[in-house]
Amino acid sequence: MPIIRFAVGRREEVTQPDALKAALAEFISTLIFVFAGQGSGMAYNKLTDSGVATPSSLLIAALAHGFGLFVAVSVGANISGGHVNPAVTFGAFIGGNITLFRGLLYWVAQLLGSTVACLLLKFTTGGMVTSGFALSGISVWNGLVFEIVMTFGLVYTVYATAIDPKKSSIGVIGPLAIGLVVAANILVGGVFTGASMNPAVSFGPALVSWEWGNHWVYWVGPIIGGGLAGALYELLFISRTHEELHESY
Amino acid sequence: MPIIRFAVGRREEVTQPDALKAALAEFISTLIFVFAGQGSGMAYNKLTDSGVATPSSLLIAALAHGFGLFVAVSVGANISGGHVNPAVTFGAFIGGNITLFRGLLYWVAQLLGSTVACLLLKFTTGGMVTSGFALSGISVWNGLVFEIVMTFGLVYTVYATAIDPKKSSIGVIGPLAIGLVVAANILVGGVFTGASMNPAVSFGPALVSWEWGNHWVYWVGPIIGGGLAGALYELLFISRTHEELHESY
Amino acid sequence: MPIIRFAVGRREEVTQPDALKAALAEFISTLIFVFAGQGSGMAYNKLTDSGVATPSSLLIAALAHGFGLFVAVSVGANISGGHVNPAVTFGAFIGGNITLFRGLLYWVAQLLGSTVACLLLKFTTGGMVTSGFALSGISVWNGLVFEIVMTFGLVYTVYATAIDPKKSSIGVIGPLAIGLVVAANILVGGVFTGASMNPAVSFGPALVSWEWGNHWVYWVGPIIGGGLAGALYELLFISRTHEELHESY
Amino acid sequence: MPIIRFAVGRREEVTQPDALKAALAEFISTLIFVFAGQGSGMAYNKLTDSGVATPSSLLIAALAHGFGLFVAVSVGANISGGHVNPAVTFGAFIGGNITLFRGLLYWVAQLLGSTVACLLLKFTTGGMVTSGFALSGISVWNGLVFEIVMTFGLVYTVYATAIDPKKSSIGVIGPLAIGLVVAANILVGGVFTGASMNPAVSFGPALVSWEWGNHWVYWVGPIIGGGLAGALYELLFISRTHEELHESY
Repeated sequence: MPIIRFAVGRREEVTQPDALKAALAEFISTLIFVFAGQGSGMAYNKLTDSGVATPSSLLIAALAHGFGLFVAVSVGANISGGHVNPAVTFGAFIGGNITLFRGLLYWVAQLLGSTVACLLLKFTTGGMVTSGFALSGISVWNGLVFEIVMTFGLVYTVYATAIDPKKSSIGVIGPLAIGLVVAANILVGGVFTGASMNPAVSFGPALVSWEWGNHWVYWVGPIIGGGLAGALYELLFISRTHEELHESY
Repeated sequence: MPIIRFAVGRREEVTQPDALKAALAEFISTLIFVFAGQGSGMAYNKLTDSGVATPSSLLIAALAHGFGLFVAVSVGANISGGHVNPAVTFGAFIGGNITLFRGLLYWVAQLLGSTVACLLLKFTTGGMVTSGFALSGISVWNGLVFEIVMTFGLVYTVYATAIDPKKSSIGVIGPLAIGLVVAANILVGGVFTGASMNPAVSFGPALVSWEWGNHWVYWVGPIIGGGLAGALYELLFISRTHEELHESY
Repeated sequence: MPIIRFAVGRREEVTQPDALKAALAEFISTLIFVFAGQGSGMAYNKLTDSGVATPSSLLIAALAHGFGLFVAVSVGANISGGHVNPAVTFGAFIGGNITLFRGLLYWVAQLLGSTVACLLLKFTTGGMVTSGFALSGISVWNGLVFEIVMTFGLVYTVYATAIDPKKSSIGVIGPLAIGLVVAANILVGGVFTGASMNPAVSFGPALVSWEWGNHWVYWVGPIIGGGLAGALYELLFISRTHEELHESY
Repeated sequence: MPIIRFAVGRREEVTQPDALKAALAEFISTLIFVFAGQGSGMAYNKLTDSGVATPSSLLIAALAHGFGLFVAVSVGANISGGHVNPAVTFGAFIGGNITLFRGLLYWVAQLLGSTVACLLLKFTTGGMVTSGFALSGISVWNGLVFEIVMTFGLVYTVYATAIDPKKSSIGVIGPLAIGLVVAANILVGGVFTGASMNPAVSFGPALVSWEWGNHWVYWVGPIIGGGLAGALYELLFISRTHEELHESY
């Protein structure tokens, strides 16, 4: 059961513009991120005439997604919180850090941003294919658990470095840790599931290339992993901190 | 129509040395950046006796430009703002964050810095060619939109992490996000347009090697993309913030 | 003889939740780190059908461990201090910065986190082997000194950037320097000893794959190196600073 | 003519321990840096049985030196300033930011640190050769200017991000910009001069492998480049700031 806190406090008013502008910021951040991540794979395909995964393609995918997500979170942080990911928004909702209405608005903006990024890539590359995510050599249950574990790590990182009120401001550690946990996980899961950890990242390419095989894995896995991380961090680490602050000051 | 704010406030006087010193800082920063970015391509050509693009060359180009730009922005930040790019300066002008006079001075300094970097590279490498930017396998319109989209992302990042007054100081997130959005975009656009996003970066090598094919794309694309990002961010996100600050304090 | 300071001061109460929650945070951080580090090696083996070390495998190992450790330290920093490594905990104990009881709790949590990460990797990859650490082409004494020198550098870095009270807060420099000293050392020692610098990192794979050859090297080396660094930094640089602060204010 | 300011002010007393401890910190920082930088080249030689430079070796050298220097500067910053380089110390002396006595002490410590790192590498690798720096395919004058230009960029970065009093504390931007300017320059100069930018980095391997060909280039180049950067930055940008601060407060 989500522990909803309605975002009506004074701090919220000062630091968060209204929901529509925040959704626009999510749209632009997701566009920048998916343009880099998905586009780097297309550039690799052009360079190698094949798209067969190699250590180089894995490294390029990891850095393009890691750098792109660091940037996307950085530019969105002060406007929308820089979620750039429906699983992060869901994890924030589970922990009571975003309202249902704003959360749904973010989801729409994130899915739209990913789709527009894929359409722009299709045009600018002169018509290349945006390839969807697929499982490689493992069962659907292996893949589901893979996405759950990796997204747990991602959303746990979001909570620890960007949402946790012990941090006075997001600063650089939040965006950097969020970008690099995705880069590190791609070096692991990239050759097994594609290491999405983000339904928006999987949705845009699937829609534009109309490839929906096992698509549900890329929604259910991240949402379970993100929800678990949000619930666990909020219950164990944040409430504890609040008590402490109460006692100490 | 640019929304010009003349830089006469007290804050400006304290944080910005006079225009000539700022222009010198732009010259040195652009020299450091282009020396690393253009030079890494020449080193790659020496290593491989060819210059055929491969995943390794893409990775090296992305990191050399990303690291070099991070450094160039960091060292210039407190003196000139660390633009290092005529499209960034134009975007700042469109949003009213630099005067016309100072902006033109920056342009001259940036173009000179890039040219001197290419001349130094030509000497120190014992006479190797500094190769210009070119479109590869796509139409000129694809390439133009490519440069627009990538530069939009870059200048949006500059606004969100370095110009936006919600940030009390530029700190590390501005230079790092600016460097890494360029690195990420090179992993996408590098094999299609060269991923310049910066007229100075294209101008120096074009001048020194006297290759001007499609050179206009590398001015028009970045300037449209940078101008759009500056106008959009200033109108939507900064003015909104100003109101908020007014209301809240 | 360790210089034990019991953690009873007011600052400790405010910044450290109780020991069990801290141990849980160590467990999760170590899980995230080992999942990325060990998993990236398994992904490389899948990609190349071999596991023969190459420059690419070395680079991937360095970045996966460096990024993963940066994240693991970042997310744990405010809860447990983000040790993620029995040698770091031992070094902190030697310098009197953690109690014996809490240190033992951390060790158990770190070893469990590494083991669970390996079990999760075994399942999600569809049954691949988690390979243990081994010496390659050098004597056991070479390897022992290698691990001592590299872990000395790691724990010295932990002291200088995260424990030293001259730093007002851990911020981003602690986790980043800790992650990158490990990445840099892997580029050196990776092909000789595996560059563990961390008994937990070696223990999980050894247990799950039941390979214990020279396993003691990966405990004795890091513990000697970490202990030396902790004693040296605490005695020379931290006490000196305390005096200075006394004299100056 | 150096503009010497004797370091007798109150700020110095508070932030700098005595010269011997600072020299010890320089020794350890240089050891960590050279162990990573030089050692990564030896690991590459082991992996490839050759040591022929390739794009991979260039990338590994850039990251090992960049990460290692970031760490070395970070851990030394609060104790010795984290020079880790005789050219940086000379540039600081030229600008009047270190006394002659302390500067000489730093030089000795840096050269010793590099030498001990090479001896440790020789032992731990089971007797591999630590190879010296050499020019490749360019004249000695090309190489000299190469080292001057690259070291100018490095010491300019040190001034702008770590020495300039406009920065209230070194924080993360100083060490990161210093590490990454070296990484970026290695991607350019690595295949021409080895991209030393640091007499200590060249001295240790030359001494241990007793290879002194063109060794003077690696002293004269960095010292000219570093001295120029120190003089220019101090005269133009720092004095200017002092005036400004005077006028404004």
